[in-house]
Amino acid sequence: MTPRHPRLDPLADRYAARTHGMKTSEIRALFSVVSRPEVVSLAGGMPAVTALPLDAVGSMIGDLVSGMGAQTLQYGSGQGDPRLRERICDVMALEGITDANPSEVVVTVGSQQGLDLVTRVFCDPGDVILAEGPSYVGALGVFQAAEARVRHVPMDDDGLIPEALEQALLECRANGDRVKFLYTVPNYHNPAGVTLSEPRRRAIIDLADRYDLLIIEDNPYGLLGFDHEPLPALRARDSRRVIYLGSFSKTFSPGLRVGWVLAPLAVREKLVLATEAQVLCPPSLTQYAVARYLDTQPWREQIKLFTELYRERRDATLESLDALMPAGTTWTRPDGGFYVWLKLPHGLDSKLMQPRAVNAHVAYVPGIGFYADGNGREYMRLSYCYPEPDQIREGVRRLARVIEAELDLHRTFDKVDTGQFRAVEHGGSGGGQPFGPQVPDVEPFVGPANSDRFEDRR
Amino acid sequence: MTPRHPRLDPLADRYAARTHGMKTSEIRALFSVVSRPEVVSLAGGMPAVTALPLDAVGSMIGDLVSGMGAQTLQYGSGQGDPRLRERICDVMALEGITDANPSEVVVTVGSQQGLDLVTRVFCDPGDVILAEGPSYVGALGVFQAAEARVRHVPMDDDGLIPEALEQALLECRANGDRVKFLYTVPNYHNPAGVTLSEPRRRAIIDLADRYDLLIIEDNPYGLLGFDHEPLPALRARDSRRVIYLGSFSKTFSPGLRVGWVLAPLAVREKLVLATEAQVLCPPSLTQYAVARYLDTQPWREQIKLFTELYRERRDATLESLDALMPAGTTWTRPDGGFYVWLKLPHGLDSKLMQPRAVNAHVAYVPGIGFYADGNGREYMRLSYCYPEPDQIREGVRRLARVIEAELDLHRTFDKVDTGQFRAVEHGGSGGGQPFGPQVPDVEPFVGPANSDRFEDRR
Repeated sequence: MTPRHPRLDPLADRYAARTHGMKTSEIRALFSVVSRPEVVSLAGGMPAVTALPLDAVGSMIGDLVSGMGAQTLQYGSGQGDPRLRERICDVMALEGITDANPSEVVVTVGSQQGLDLVTRVFCDPGDVILAEGPSYVGALGVFQAAEARVRHVPMDDDGLIPEALEQALLECRANGDRVKFLYTVPNYHNPAGVTLSEPRRRAIIDLADRYDLLIIEDNPYGLLGFDHEPLPALRARDSRRVIYLGSFSKTFSPGLRVGWVLAPLAVREKLVLATEAQVLCPPSLTQYAVARYLDTQPWREQIKLFTELYRERRDATLESLDALMPAGTTWTRPDGGFYVWLKLPHGLDSKLMQPRAVNAHVAYVPGIGFYADGNGREYMRLSYCYPEPDQIREGVRRLARVIEAELDLHRTFDKVDTGQFRAVEHGGSGGGQPFGPQVPDVEPFVGPANSDRFEDRR
Repeated sequence: MTPRHPRLDPLADRYAARTHGMKTSEIRALFSVVSRPEVVSLAGGMPAVTALPLDAVGSMIGDLVSGMGAQTLQYGSGQGDPRLRERICDVMALEGITDANPSEVVVTVGSQQGLDLVTRVFCDPGDVILAEGPSYVGALGVFQAAEARVRHVPMDDDGLIPEALEQALLECRANGDRVKFLYTVPNYHNPAGVTLSEPRRRAIIDLADRYDLLIIEDNPYGLLGFDHEPLPALRARDSRRVIYLGSFSKTFSPGLRVGWVLAPLAVREKLVLATEAQVLCPPSLTQYAVARYLDTQPWREQIKLFTELYRERRDATLESLDALMPAGTTWTRPDGGFYVWLKLPHGLDSKLMQPRAVNAHVAYVPGIGFYADGNGREYMRLSYCYPEPDQIREGVRRLARVIEAELDLHRTFDKVDTGQFRAVEHGGSGGGQPFGPQVPDVEPFVGPANSDRFEDRR
């Protein structure tokens, strides 16, 4: 049974059903481009790890191996190092989770694995997952691998819209869909950059209670706020219906791949069995490194330092956008985290525009990567976490030129009625009104409010 | 919808189908017991990492962080560090795989994740996986999580029996089973301790070709041979139908969780997408640590040192077994790796005997953990990799006493016809005759040959 065409995949007919849907994410597809030095990348979400005290961290980790090799180089428990799980509870207390017990924590290979484990434990093919529109691209990859169906719920400057969530729940109930959980990133959303407001947190917990909805709260950015103390986590309000995902990737180092899940004991039990089948146990060295870091290094001050650095870069981004973007372009104004979510003038397509942007030596992530339903073509994600402020300004300058050129092109071909820009913007500028799939001709609309400030400043 | 009994799992009706089958492995169940100092544990498979040059490794890893923090603490590629993938090809060359290209290698979080990825990429629920009887317990956990059905294929002192494999393939074909692959550990099998002979390697590759069978070759122990150079890997003979799993857990450190998959490019592509959905990328620090270790430390000499140490422990185990085990007990004689597979006298049950063994302060892993079909009660796995030779001798002494006591008990209650012991042993002593599920009243029978040597020495 040797294949006639050896260059074709002889195993093509053997793969599991889940394998057929797998595709490279918009972000991964950009990696080769992004790594070119002449390109200013506003695409990747890489933390500024060089701001860490590398010598101190290096000798700390070196000592861990020399002094505790019997533990740090050996297999560990599937649930994760007990000492680290205790310290993780201290970290969660900073966001109002004061009742967490180390026995309810499972250490994972980044919170990505935590999300994969939760999804494997709960989702059969065809199950429905509710998620913000847009959603974290890595979560969409997990849900697709689980052959789950994603139903996006619109959001605006204040995050997920409770009325839209309730409407989605009712529609799913009417369709007889098995809704397994709501997946949400309440703080400094990736990619939208917005944060779920205090009243909406109450409203969503209330909905979860009324509809017996399980919530997966993914919170990698919660401690990276620029303007205020973190809002209490959803998990701080409901320990029974909220499964919480945390990570040290943004507060310490992503290269160690240390995240965690906080879940009720019955779920935690299943998660441990699932992770043992997947990786046996998380790496011991990286767990000891994080625990020792939390024990011996000024990690709270380090987070402040990171936050100052990201705030500067956020400011550089918003100032350049305000100064340079053509009318009709709108974007969110994050007060923490890594991302700005930008909407192009009516008629432009970030995916089609991408090659011209790369020619102009600026990279971003097209919005379609953050939707499971093909929406998002007029959006793009801009990351300010990694480039220096000057690079950011230059990148935005290049991007603005590319957008201008696209607009000229469209005007020439009369594809755009420029007179409608402001109308369209104002249509969305109120914020809070539900947008999204349930109104087919209006896309989920994020962050129009800044367009007013934008007008004011003109 | 608050549950009436808060102590029950309110989410019990929400879990995925795959979750219901998950159960703690026989090994994990023993962990608490094993950790008690008074117990000699012949249960765990922990490598002797303290035999590593911990100071050198410690300063090596410390320097990696201090000097290359921008890389070692940052996200990396989903496929794994290119430099490490090159070095992995050098390592595989030691077992005859000379045509591997770094582009065909995917770095994983231990080879456990490699097996999980391969299984997710190929197996739908209900698919059949052929595996040795007994099989590595961690693999059975992966297959169960994938809702695949495991069909055990008998083995003997020379490893998997080709005639039995062909019979299994024919039976599956007759049943219309979708056989996705054969999972095999050809070298120093876990738990059987036996190695697939050279002629059988040829025979199995020939079968794979004739039946278009995909083979997953799991080879964590291949470089830990006591008496001869490694036999060429199955992958060295067939690059199209063999997917190879490797690991640094036994040759360097399990706590770093660095393993790999070598697969044809089309499969590799799918594996990378699957691992990106699961963990984004393997930890950077641990990958750099392994690559730097291979670049700068005398790793071949270190493997020799490990091998000498394990050989001593193997010898202590076999000498004690030869000297102390009651007639009717048989075991394999590994010439590499970590494990001896022991068969109890007729009528004894290793699972039922376990509490009495633990009372006598010796621990082992009951054989049933290594079968997906409930077989293996008369077997146990003894690991000699971790305890010192004196501990091993004491452990075997305690185990022998426990078995003697069980035999007395059975004789008293006339459960055992002692006159039948040797007959049963000799029935199996030829080796090579097919045993196993297809002959319902005869279990897969591993390693009787030593019983002859045992008799000789008496």
